[in-house]
Amino acid sequence: MEGKVKVHGELVSFSTPGELWSTDLTHEVEKIVKNSGITEGIVVVSVIGSTGAVGTIEFESGLQKDIATLMEELIPSKRHWRHNDTWGDANGHSHLRATLLGPSVTIPVSKGKPVLGTWQQIFFIEFDIRPRNRKVFVQVMGI
Amino acid sequence: MEGKVKVHGELVSFSTPGELWSTDLTHEVEKIVKNSGITEGIVVVSVIGSTGAVGTIEFESGLQKDIATLMEELIPSKRHWRHNDTWGDANGHSHLRATLLGPSVTIPVSKGKPVLGTWQQIFFIEFDIRPRNRKVFVQVMGI
Amino acid sequence: MEGKVKVHGELVSFSTPGELWSTDLTHEVEKIVKNSGITEGIVVVSVIGSTGAVGTIEFESGLQKDIATLMEELIPSKRHWRHNDTWGDANGHSHLRATLLGPSVTIPVSKGKPVLGTWQQIFFIEFDIRPRNRKVFVQVMGI
Repeated sequence: MEGKVKVHGELVSFSTPGELWSTDLTHEVEKIVKNSGITEGIVVVSVIGSTGAVGTIEFESGLQKDIATLMEELIPSKRHWRHNDTWGDANGHSHLRATLLGPSVTIPVSKGKPVLGTWQQIFFIEFDIRPRNRKVFVQVMGI
Repeated sequence: MEGKVKVHGELVSFSTPGELWSTDLTHEVEKIVKNSGITEGIVVVSVIGSTGAVGTIEFESGLQKDIATLMEELIPSKRHWRHNDTWGDANGHSHLRATLLGPSVTIPVSKGKPVLGTWQQIFFIEFDIRPRNRKVFVQVMGI
Repeated sequence: MEGKVKVHGELVSFSTPGELWSTDLTHEVEKIVKNSGITEGIVVVSVIGSTGAVGTIEFESGLQKDIATLMEELIPSKRHWRHNDTWGDANGHSHLRATLLGPSVTIPVSKGKPVLGTWQQIFFIEFDIRPRNRKVFVQVMGI
């Protein structure tokens, strides 16, 4: 297919209670894709900030706990991270976790919807150690 | 360059023997880029499902074994993951590995080809614990 | 918004001193977005090669050291990796680190700039064990 390109961006805002809280953004992203009028293209879901991350996961309560457990094991919060010397803010591990999981995820859009599996949700996870007001930018592009 | 945008999507289907098997998708992706007629743009390679992942790697047999070893060390299969209580399906580690490596990879397209190094291949890795029929959506967009 | 699509790609070249050196690419990426004339769309920053990676981070000296420490802990350089048998080049860990962090990052572009937080920079990290001449392809697409 070819034609004029459409670009449609929306900012999703929410507040978080702090460390290792996560939320399912799939319905929000699907709504924004619908708002765009785009049927074939891509959607980029991207965190503004360096201590939160997005990805895909089967969003159920067991895995929500497991990903928290895993992150604490791989990148312990109790370790002395050098970042903490720079700012004295004790969230070095938050930054490292966010960088490892990644700030953005790109998903194809087809027939007016993000192409995902039934058990595959787009999620945001808070890695910072305090409550935050978060902004996630959702950019849809296509025809 | 500017002009009409083209969007071209193809579904790549294959079956896998199960856990930690991987396959090189580069030629398939190059063929789909060629089919699209797009010379400048991007290609998004995205797994449908939450227990497989894609990325780039030098696809040779040593690293295929190494990535399996690494995943078992970072996210052990023998651990009790809470996901397993939810469904009783023993693949909590599969989900976590897939989320960590990521469901999609986006590569620039230039001169009609994905922009990759000589030793850099696009690969899929199966993290589920049983044979699966897999679908990877390849979306090419550009001019 | 809709119209003709623009695609603008530039290659960023630099040399690195070797393992675990990192650099902030944000200004370079912002300049390329500006050169493109694109105000709404996306930018893909993608490493050509399999032993370097890109992502976003708060680019300050503490975290630069922390990410090096973390990578050495998660994927030790002293381990026997099977890749090293294939080529005898002792950089199996470099490949695994690059695959885990990922070869590319996609960021929305809005109002002519990549959508990033104040403390969120786009960075490249060298994982190879020797000095390298690196090429990072930056593809901007939109209107």
